[in-house]
Amino acid sequence: MDLATIIGIIFGAFVVGLAIFLGGEIGAFVDVPSVLIVVGGASAATLVRFPLANVASALILGGKTAFTHRRIEPHDLINEIAELADVARKQGPLGLEGVEVDHEFLAKGVQYIADGYDHDFIRESLERERDLMLERLQDGQRIFKAIGDAAPAFGMIGTLVGLVAMLANMDDPSKIGPSMAIALLTTLYGAIIANLVCLPVADKLELKSKIEDVNLTLILDGVMQLRDSKSPNLVKEMLISYLPEKGRAAFAEASA
Amino acid sequence: MDLATIIGIIFGAFVVGLAIFLGGEIGAFVDVPSVLIVVGGASAATLVRFPLANVASALILGGKTAFTHRRIEPHDLINEIAELADVARKQGPLGLEGVEVDHEFLAKGVQYIADGYDHDFIRESLERERDLMLERLQDGQRIFKAIGDAAPAFGMIGTLVGLVAMLANMDDPSKIGPSMAIALLTTLYGAIIANLVCLPVADKLELKSKIEDVNLTLILDGVMQLRDSKSPNLVKEMLISYLPEKGRAAFAEASA
Amino acid sequence: MDLATIIGIIFGAFVVGLAIFLGGEIGAFVDVPSVLIVVGGASAATLVRFPLANVASALILGGKTAFTHRRIEPHDLINEIAELADVARKQGPLGLEGVEVDHEFLAKGVQYIADGYDHDFIRESLERERDLMLERLQDGQRIFKAIGDAAPAFGMIGTLVGLVAMLANMDDPSKIGPSMAIALLTTLYGAIIANLVCLPVADKLELKSKIEDVNLTLILDGVMQLRDSKSPNLVKEMLISYLPEKGRAAFAEASA
Amino acid sequence: MDLATIIGIIFGAFVVGLAIFLGGEIGAFVDVPSVLIVVGGASAATLVRFPLANVASALILGGKTAFTHRRIEPHDLINEIAELADVARKQGPLGLEGVEVDHEFLAKGVQYIADGYDHDFIRESLERERDLMLERLQDGQRIFKAIGDAAPAFGMIGTLVGLVAMLANMDDPSKIGPSMAIALLTTLYGAIIANLVCLPVADKLELKSKIEDVNLTLILDGVMQLRDSKSPNLVKEMLISYLPEKGRAAFAEASA
Amino acid sequence: MDLATIIGIIFGAFVVGLAIFLGGEIGAFVDVPSVLIVVGGASAATLVRFPLANVASALILGGKTAFTHRRIEPHDLINEIAELADVARKQGPLGLEGVEVDHEFLAKGVQYIADGYDHDFIRESLERERDLMLERLQDGQRIFKAIGDAAPAFGMIGTLVGLVAMLANMDDPSKIGPSMAIALLTTLYGAIIANLVCLPVADKLELKSKIEDVNLTLILDGVMQLRDSKSPNLVKEMLISYLPEKGRAAFAEASA
Repeated sequence: MDLATIIGIIFGAFVVGLAIFLGGEIGAFVDVPSVLIVVGGASAATLVRFPLANVASALILGGKTAFTHRRIEPHDLINEIAELADVARKQGPLGLEGVEVDHEFLAKGVQYIADGYDHDFIRESLERERDLMLERLQDGQRIFKAIGDAAPAFGMIGTLVGLVAMLANMDDPSKIGPSMAIALLTTLYGAIIANLVCLPVADKLELKSKIEDVNLTLILDGVMQLRDSKSPNLVKEMLISYLPEKGRAAFAEASA
Repeated sequence: MDLATIIGIIFGAFVVGLAIFLGGEIGAFVDVPSVLIVVGGASAATLVRFPLANVASALILGGKTAFTHRRIEPHDLINEIAELADVARKQGPLGLEGVEVDHEFLAKGVQYIADGYDHDFIRESLERERDLMLERLQDGQRIFKAIGDAAPAFGMIGTLVGLVAMLANMDDPSKIGPSMAIALLTTLYGAIIANLVCLPVADKLELKSKIEDVNLTLILDGVMQLRDSKSPNLVKEMLISYLPEKGRAAFAEASA
Repeated sequence: MDLATIIGIIFGAFVVGLAIFLGGEIGAFVDVPSVLIVVGGASAATLVRFPLANVASALILGGKTAFTHRRIEPHDLINEIAELADVARKQGPLGLEGVEVDHEFLAKGVQYIADGYDHDFIRESLERERDLMLERLQDGQRIFKAIGDAAPAFGMIGTLVGLVAMLANMDDPSKIGPSMAIALLTTLYGAIIANLVCLPVADKLELKSKIEDVNLTLILDGVMQLRDSKSPNLVKEMLISYLPEKGRAAFAEASA
Repeated sequence: MDLATIIGIIFGAFVVGLAIFLGGEIGAFVDVPSVLIVVGGASAATLVRFPLANVASALILGGKTAFTHRRIEPHDLINEIAELADVARKQGPLGLEGVEVDHEFLAKGVQYIADGYDHDFIRESLERERDLMLERLQDGQRIFKAIGDAAPAFGMIGTLVGLVAMLANMDDPSKIGPSMAIALLTTLYGAIIANLVCLPVADKLELKSKIEDVNLTLILDGVMQLRDSKSPNLVKEMLISYLPEKGRAAFAEASA
Repeated sequence: MDLATIIGIIFGAFVVGLAIFLGGEIGAFVDVPSVLIVVGGASAATLVRFPLANVASALILGGKTAFTHRRIEPHDLINEIAELADVARKQGPLGLEGVEVDHEFLAKGVQYIADGYDHDFIRESLERERDLMLERLQDGQRIFKAIGDAAPAFGMIGTLVGLVAMLANMDDPSKIGPSMAIALLTTLYGAIIANLVCLPVADKLELKSKIEDVNLTLILDGVMQLRDSKSPNLVKEMLISYLPEKGRAAFAEASA
């Protein structure tokens, strides 16, 4: 679970909810048609922007990643791969069959080795998979960004619709206030969707796809060395030297 | 047909229409002069921006592409070209004459081969055609973007005109509401045109021109190999290696 | 004449004028001090931004180019230069003296050849002239862009001045409406100047300076080959190969 | 202490405070729920954007650096390192043990030398530390920037909540004024937090991380030369030549 | 004197002043606390952004440069340096002692030659000085830009403070108008400071620092050739060839 994402959104919703609660009756802030116009309009504009297939899957993957993806430190990965190298050396590639591996991508690589695939096949398969995973994360980021841009625009469109309807029928002055209140709700919904959820989640997905790039490439390099039955120490040393400079510092810090 | 574009725009229009319907009488939202000022003004500004000839043709091509252009997967193209290579090998270039080819650009290349044109002529002709098609798509994207930028500006201009007219003649207070309602319509129209249609379509055209670039270049390379009577397997292998890395992963995934 | 620019601005002005006409009396939309503050303020800010000498000349040249400059197709230029090469070959450089050349820059180059200047002198003179012409077009673009940015800002300043004056003296409520109408006029003027005229013209000048760059460089290369008495066919072939790839495709299309 | 940061914020707070004081009773400007929604909402959005661990530490380090970090001139550092080189030459590496060094990073390097670590270990340790420090400063900058972007957005959300609550219950017209006053407070708080504190502090952190980059790299180079027992003059000369060109000019100016 | 800057600001102030004058009593537009909040707040935010020492000096140098700095044409400089080369050749370096040189930077270089400093010392000293001058101009530009960004923000803050104060105490309806007038003044001040003064001056400083870069580098190269007692014609020819291409065209044009 990514606590920061969840805590942030829950805390933000709580803060906005508290403000509403203090402002008076909650009923005045709930209006189904207003939700429909903002969510529906922003979805419609996003559908036009992207191919149909991508929107749904990228939204789901993006959401899943932003909320549940636990950050894995490169040094934990390196240690795990070094342990696997130890197993592979002592028991041969087949010994890897029995080892339980948490990380899905690493597990798949280990399985390939246990199954005895050759060096080039494993590298190509894993590179392809890594590229697809990163591409999907980036699609997810772009789609959250697009919704975050469209939501305030459709919030404004909804408010304009409400204002025009109100102004065209001003027979009963006592209705002006409540009508305007409802008209403003779409702007409020659009601002909350964009600023509390979509734009921050897009930023987090950008960050995560950078981290994933480092981690998946690290695993890929590690699996290739497992395949070649390198010694655990050599594997460790080489993987550290493969890390980008920043990661290396963080790794050393974490190991200290 | 590009379902995402059509579904998106129809769904968005439905959502906005529903909001209007729930808001009261639909008549209050229709005002021909308001449509005129937003559409006319945005068109005028776009005319100043681009050469006359381009605007009309790019708008039509762009619209057509955004709404009807079906995404063709590179791997379908590669398979089709490999089949053509099979035909060309067994029956010679003339055998290609009888094959039915869906994709217009591929069909033209195959025709050139069947007609016996030489290698350089075919390459140059197809490169030229590809460049022209991509250039037109990009012009279309720029023009939709320009309209999407101009529409809200002329929406604001229309609202200002309406406000000035209303404020200058406030003799009858009962008219203030309806007058302001009409004044706000141009802003509403501008926001809908920009956010539901023009800006998303411009984004989709950008995406499509990237996909077309890959596909047309793939076909061009494939046709050159057909011309040289390469074996189907060789053609397939080389075309895959020509794909950008991402495409390659997607191709492998699709073939799996 | 550049019809797109002229049609665009006239059509845009007509649309805005129609909206005003439908809104009521035209007198409410004309206010000389409001024109003064927007045009004067934007001019003042532009004067601060650029050296004095540049503003006037770049504005004139830019305006002239945006409104009157006819697009010349590279292939027409190439054909004209090839014809000149034919003359030069048959009658010698002096034969060029009598030929009438429309394009000013080409005419100057031809005159240099007829006058018997040497290769280096002609190249340097023409390069210098080309650079100066392009630089002026770009200055013109930057200045229209600067005015287009400043006009809405001074429109807002004017509206604020009007609002403050109105609010400070609210003794007669019946004057509030008309006063606000006048206050809003500067914002309206600023939006029209920027969105209908200045920003689109700046965009068109950017486009034109790119086209001019290609054309003038083409003429320069052509003149150098005329000077060296190359054969018309050779001149034609080399000039086509000098074109950027896009232009080449367009040229081939146009010749077809 | 960084006087500019402190003076700036205190002076800005004083100016805003004075405006409030002149405007009437201060009580009208203090509203705890409004503070909560702006600060809470902006924090929530920032939490979603960044990993949990980073936000707190980067905020603290960033704040500390922006407010207390004294600018150290490269030439003071060079002189100090030259003096240390003198000590190291006369008394050997162990002599450095007794010298008191203010700058934390330099002190660590000197300690390494006194402890007799080898050349490569010292370089790697210090590079790692420098990278971590710079990375944290940049994280701090990004987080202040993110808060500065989110605060006005949640200010607007708070105002919308207040407006909707007010408009939905307009029974008592005398409450409209005070209710709107409170609704506007969140926008005011958001604007002050962003424009007086967060965005300027982010800019200052950007500047400081550039200066720190130069200084820490200078110290690192200096320590390596201390380790190799270079002569003070040589150390000085080489460190100056290592400075980026700008710094060199400033150094010469300062030494003059 | 830079007439464009001065004329622009005076003309802009006149236009705004005229609009105020036509709008009614000038007194309604002068409010000392409003000036304080905009100028004070923008200064405070700028203080936080930059190191204390830089703000004052860069502001003064920037202002001085924007208002008084006369544009010097490269060709005038080249001619002056050629004349100096003539003197240096006929009378030796000492002969330069008596020549009066207007341009401060050139005068310093000539003095160095007359004083008999060696080639490397002169080059290094002048390069350092040029870098410092350019850096200060760029600092000035950045600071004017920062003030121009902060002024409208604090204008809005001031207006919000005024609105809150007004709304919280609406006992006397007759005071609403004047109170809002005063509240709007800070927004007006902020817009004028940014759009008439700070942002245009920042743009002009950017332009000037580019021109200065060319001129100072030209002088530096010229002084180095004076030092080596090159012939006037050689100096002239080489300096022209050192100019960036654009400058060369302008030089030729000016000499023609």
